[in-house]
Amino acid sequence: MSDAKFELYYWPGIPGRGEFVRLVLEEAGADWVDVGLLPEAQGGGAKAITAMISKGSVPAYAPPVLKVGDVVFSQAPNICSYLGERFGLVPADEASRLHARQFQLTVADAVAEAHDTHHPLAVMKYYDEQKDAAKQRAEDFRTQRIPKFLGYFERVLKANTQGGGKYLLGRDFSYPELALYQLVEGLLYAFPNAMRRVAPEVPGVMALRQRIAERPRIAAYKKSPRAQPFNPHGIFRHYPELDDPNATK
Amino acid sequence: MSDAKFELYYWPGIPGRGEFVRLVLEEAGADWVDVGLLPEAQGGGAKAITAMISKGSVPAYAPPVLKVGDVVFSQAPNICSYLGERFGLVPADEASRLHARQFQLTVADAVAEAHDTHHPLAVMKYYDEQKDAAKQRAEDFRTQRIPKFLGYFERVLKANTQGGGKYLLGRDFSYPELALYQLVEGLLYAFPNAMRRVAPEVPGVMALRQRIAERPRIAAYKKSPRAQPFNPHGIFRHYPELDDPNATK
Repeated sequence: MSDAKFELYYWPGIPGRGEFVRLVLEEAGADWVDVGLLPEAQGGGAKAITAMISKGSVPAYAPPVLKVGDVVFSQAPNICSYLGERFGLVPADEASRLHARQFQLTVADAVAEAHDTHHPLAVMKYYDEQKDAAKQRAEDFRTQRIPKFLGYFERVLKANTQGGGKYLLGRDFSYPELALYQLVEGLLYAFPNAMRRVAPEVPGVMALRQRIAERPRIAAYKKSPRAQPFNPHGIFRHYPELDDPNATK
Repeated sequence: MSDAKFELYYWPGIPGRGEFVRLVLEEAGADWVDVGLLPEAQGGGAKAITAMISKGSVPAYAPPVLKVGDVVFSQAPNICSYLGERFGLVPADEASRLHARQFQLTVADAVAEAHDTHHPLAVMKYYDEQKDAAKQRAEDFRTQRIPKFLGYFERVLKANTQGGGKYLLGRDFSYPELALYQLVEGLLYAFPNAMRRVAPEVPGVMALRQRIAERPRIAAYKKSPRAQPFNPHGIFRHYPELDDPNATK
């Protein structure tokens, strides 16, 4: 299918959960290919994703799926931790690795809740069929959950005096910060009004997001055609009726 | 606080997400203590959990938290994988470990959705305040999601010809099967009618659940006072109005 060492299988057209993997691959400078973005004639497109999910002795429940040589495995936090550890994007001691996985999984929990704001009743039904419930769920998410999740990472940064509150694990950058960055980007896209209110409460998180955005490989990736913008088909969706009401500031 | 090698910090009174960790500790025959079940005078109870979450240089977002010597970390799938690998409850090769983590995370996704059936709109509000939405979410969960999640594990068992469809990874038991067992137990408790309909579609999963229940250490644990029964305060709740309507069979 390709000569790349790492093959990512994820739906083309959305950042989605695949983006968390893409960011680690890019930061690692890995030799990788986004199979979903290849033309079907080259074995790419959505068809390749569908085929890969059900293939092999260990099928995946859902993409993203990573293929490394003969090994095919899934679950975004699992893939990110594997790559982060393999490429040295986390200190080598056991405690750092366990804490990095903890952070990655906590971001994943927040991402799942962000998805549920527009699909609170049924994943497979249209947003329009669950709009009223979505408004209630989104209000709870904006007022309770975003401050709780981002507030948690703010506390981690503050508790961590070793690194002057710059990184989650202390002095060194680690891969779950790519996930936290993507979470904040998604929240800024989906809930811009709510984030104007929350951001001043979590200055450490917002500064970390900025530092990640400025990392040369991340900045180059985001400007490249490989990076797919947020849109109303992904996890993070901007429906104005689900955001805070517009405030004159 | 205790002389045990592994200290689990989780809310007393419910199986909850802590149960996934407890099952691995029990199957491993680990020297462990359930701090939440100790009397407050011995440093236990809910107070100890609250204190542990916010403690140290790396706070936890939520329990379960595991303390091993000086290392304190959280996120149930992370803890289960750590223990499963440390105690040899998964083959040592990298592919097996990655697939075990994949299974553990997929069970965790199903567990989060089971929770959302009774809290589709707001985690911190009462069930009674979101009962109508809960009915819709539960119907989707029962008719679409349970068959999809359990059907996935059924496919894994079938794809895995090496072990005759007995275990997820082939010939050998592995720790995510404890999680799958607990998921099925929870679904049987919460949605008995729906499970009467789904179970015949996933005979491999139901047989695996039975094999896990019969493992000596799991059977002994479940009979012990350490095991806390399901109840209407946990993740899996039996509200008859959220289950399939009663059928005469």
